[in-house]
Amino acid sequence: MAKTAISPTRSENYPEWYQQVIKGADLAENSDVRGCMVIKPWGYAIWENIQRRLDAMFKATGHENAYFPLFIPMSFLEKEAQHVEGFAKECAVVTHHRLEPDGQGGLRPAPDSKLEEPLIVRPTSETIIGATFARWVQSYRDLPILINQWANVVRWELRTRMFLRTTEFLWQEGHTVHASAEEAQAETRQMLDVYAAFAEGAMAMPVIKGEKTAGERFPGAVATYSIEAMMQDRKALQAGTSHFLGQNFAKAQEIKFQNVAGELQHAWTTSWGVSTRLIGGLIMSHSDDDGLVLPPKLAPAQVVILPIYRNNEEKSAVLPYCQSLKSELESQRYDDEPVRVRIDDRDLRGGDKKWQWVKRGVPVLVEVGPRDVQSGGVFRARRAIDAKGVGVPRSEFVATIANTLAEMQQGLFDRAAAARDAATVEIADLAKFEKFFADDAPGGLAYCHFTDGPAMEAKLKELKVTPRCVPLVGGESSGKCIFSGEATSRRAVFARSY
Amino acid sequence: MAKTAISPTRSENYPEWYQQVIKGADLAENSDVRGCMVIKPWGYAIWENIQRRLDAMFKATGHENAYFPLFIPMSFLEKEAQHVEGFAKECAVVTHHRLEPDGQGGLRPAPDSKLEEPLIVRPTSETIIGATFARWVQSYRDLPILINQWANVVRWELRTRMFLRTTEFLWQEGHTVHASAEEAQAETRQMLDVYAAFAEGAMAMPVIKGEKTAGERFPGAVATYSIEAMMQDRKALQAGTSHFLGQNFAKAQEIKFQNVAGELQHAWTTSWGVSTRLIGGLIMSHSDDDGLVLPPKLAPAQVVILPIYRNNEEKSAVLPYCQSLKSELESQRYDDEPVRVRIDDRDLRGGDKKWQWVKRGVPVLVEVGPRDVQSGGVFRARRAIDAKGVGVPRSEFVATIANTLAEMQQGLFDRAAAARDAATVEIADLAKFEKFFADDAPGGLAYCHFTDGPAMEAKLKELKVTPRCVPLVGGESSGKCIFSGEATSRRAVFARSY
Repeated sequence: MAKTAISPTRSENYPEWYQQVIKGADLAENSDVRGCMVIKPWGYAIWENIQRRLDAMFKATGHENAYFPLFIPMSFLEKEAQHVEGFAKECAVVTHHRLEPDGQGGLRPAPDSKLEEPLIVRPTSETIIGATFARWVQSYRDLPILINQWANVVRWELRTRMFLRTTEFLWQEGHTVHASAEEAQAETRQMLDVYAAFAEGAMAMPVIKGEKTAGERFPGAVATYSIEAMMQDRKALQAGTSHFLGQNFAKAQEIKFQNVAGELQHAWTTSWGVSTRLIGGLIMSHSDDDGLVLPPKLAPAQVVILPIYRNNEEKSAVLPYCQSLKSELESQRYDDEPVRVRIDDRDLRGGDKKWQWVKRGVPVLVEVGPRDVQSGGVFRARRAIDAKGVGVPRSEFVATIANTLAEMQQGLFDRAAAARDAATVEIADLAKFEKFFADDAPGGLAYCHFTDGPAMEAKLKELKVTPRCVPLVGGESSGKCIFSGEATSRRAVFARSY
Repeated sequence: MAKTAISPTRSENYPEWYQQVIKGADLAENSDVRGCMVIKPWGYAIWENIQRRLDAMFKATGHENAYFPLFIPMSFLEKEAQHVEGFAKECAVVTHHRLEPDGQGGLRPAPDSKLEEPLIVRPTSETIIGATFARWVQSYRDLPILINQWANVVRWELRTRMFLRTTEFLWQEGHTVHASAEEAQAETRQMLDVYAAFAEGAMAMPVIKGEKTAGERFPGAVATYSIEAMMQDRKALQAGTSHFLGQNFAKAQEIKFQNVAGELQHAWTTSWGVSTRLIGGLIMSHSDDDGLVLPPKLAPAQVVILPIYRNNEEKSAVLPYCQSLKSELESQRYDDEPVRVRIDDRDLRGGDKKWQWVKRGVPVLVEVGPRDVQSGGVFRARRAIDAKGVGVPRSEFVATIANTLAEMQQGLFDRAAAARDAATVEIADLAKFEKFFADDAPGGLAYCHFTDGPAMEAKLKELKVTPRCVPLVGGESSGKCIFSGEATSRRAVFARSY
């Protein structure tokens, strides 16, 4: 049996492997607050890279950032609760604004500081942003409003899992207002395209773009679109959503404008978001039994150089060689930026350091010892390609680093796409569907004709399967619903999911 | 009387002028949640520029970002309350985790969702980060730990004022752990220097670096340092603080490490922070009776181009001219980045648009009409220099734009420094001090010898004056305390303050 850096392996215990990859890569840890995590520097640096790229894409499509209050007055949610079935009630409720000594050496919420109206820590900012937009919008000249917010949000989750489902998480939420349905629909689809381009281009994570079925729609939305990725355990992960809200939210929040003809009418709105959940998707798309595997575009360090020496004499030769190598690499550009390089000269055993960086998913690891200095070479290992490494002339290594990273980025995408395709089937009858999703079967993604209805609902509940989306490509197709036998013109992707 | 864009003027009503500048510049507005503001796109873009520059300075000095939970268990504050006098008790307390229908069409916190232990929305993350560090630190090899967090925090303020004091605000908090007192002290001073360099270099806001007197120290700190700026109403604004915490917090939070000799000992810690309050300081340092004045380095747009035309024919000549002008300007670099340029082609009256950008503080406004196209010129106005504008040949305008912006940046600093110097005095006796801070006097900054004690405290309380800091330059000086007459070797800067 080959020894792996992560135990258990994926095949032994996938959920536990996931936790151990996070631990081994030093991405995050549980905190002293139930369901909330501490995002450690290596994990947060990945989030910063995600933010930076997405933010540039949002701005390139005309959006501006703004910031809205953390707290939502309870009355705002009451209004929403009346309008929207399926209103989420699990949330953090602020009821007092002062602590006082409890007379026993501890503290307590001061009874006289009870708020007249409780405040809710935002589970999403939909309502408070809507109330603000109602003030901002008067005329068609004020439209469109194209706003994004980077923020923390809180949903009181019973079962949490780092990055995938936590009580507090970080996200961005886009909220836009338009003078016509067509423009709002185009915005909804544009942001879905932005998410897909980011997932595939930067995360190397292939996704299916599609529309949610009625039962999976965001409460109150006219249409919800999502990008769906497949993880290595063949479960689907919803990685981003974009909602066309029609005039529903504008009516609830009284967002009205005077149109060109001078008439007052309700506006059309959209919202769209991705979160730190993306990091969960990143982990489960590429990582292996030696730990995290990072696509070069999002890696906080793309190259780590490990100087190897046994004494001061060797050190005085090796360290300057590493420093000039770092400078040469940094003068190369990949993905429109200088290559990101670190030297790890910590006073630790070389093997320990190397495995730390393997587990952290650094694309290219370079060891440099006295012999490499003499020969003008480096010893290079590419994560998930040639882990044992190979000697390469230094000049060649530097000259080809951008290509190396580009090939690795593409290689991760290709591998993930091949894995997904190998786990994707078309199924035309229910028996095969049941077999495909049997508890002892590997499962995957199944394209099937369907009609929404009780027959489908009951069967899916039994199998713990959900319709992920009706794909934009291939979703319109004539056939027979595999659950009810009715004629239909729609096909969905079905899967178990996170 | 000259007509001004902002009413009232500074001399008429300074506090109201401040609010109107914020409104006129579209920086922020009050929200539906008491004491919390909405930071609008123009205001948030300034914050993004502040963040981006400070973040680069933090990283250049070896710090990494991380993220810690929004909530603090009440027991963490109980521990702190025992250790620290002056513990702040006004905060948002989460007591329930679910809303349920109240039976009358509304919602209420579900009684059965009451938390066993209340959670506090972080007023600062000191305690939860300390608890985390206690897990991270075992050996001297783990040190130093150099962490920064960008986050929102909440303090239940009774009287709020946009940017200067709000219930929720955005900030960064640095938290570091060191193996020696010397190293922690050096870190504390280094970050004070970073803040001062940022305030003076990017915000064009001159500051005094100094140490707080005992009464103004952060509770639990061994030494608190701050940068102090003077606003146009001659009040001081504390713009950033850096704390040397000694071993006090490490003892309360049990942050221990094994030193090189193998002994277990408590570590030394620091913390340091700046917040959206900086935007308040920016406003009050430079703005005038026509609204916001932005230093070019932090302006979301450094140049705004206003195309002027009366018909489609003129438009077809003017717009392409503006677009190519924009490209040419963007190919120029100022402050290591391409010049930031916008074209405002909105369908609004030219005068209205121009005054909007004046009030928003854009450094350079350029009007381009058909005659400018013919003559190959632009009509350029520099904010707070030549508001009426002057014709300039296009090629000259483009070639000198970086110099123009650099001169404007320096000009703002010089003007603010001159205003501060003109309002700064040395005072050696109490009668003059009382006169300087009399209610009908303009006030300012007074350098005076002092000894901490009841004589000083009583007099300062009466005059509503505080010691801002003992300046690093000029703070050590022999003399006689102006309050008690005692001999002393220290001098402080005294002022009314925000």
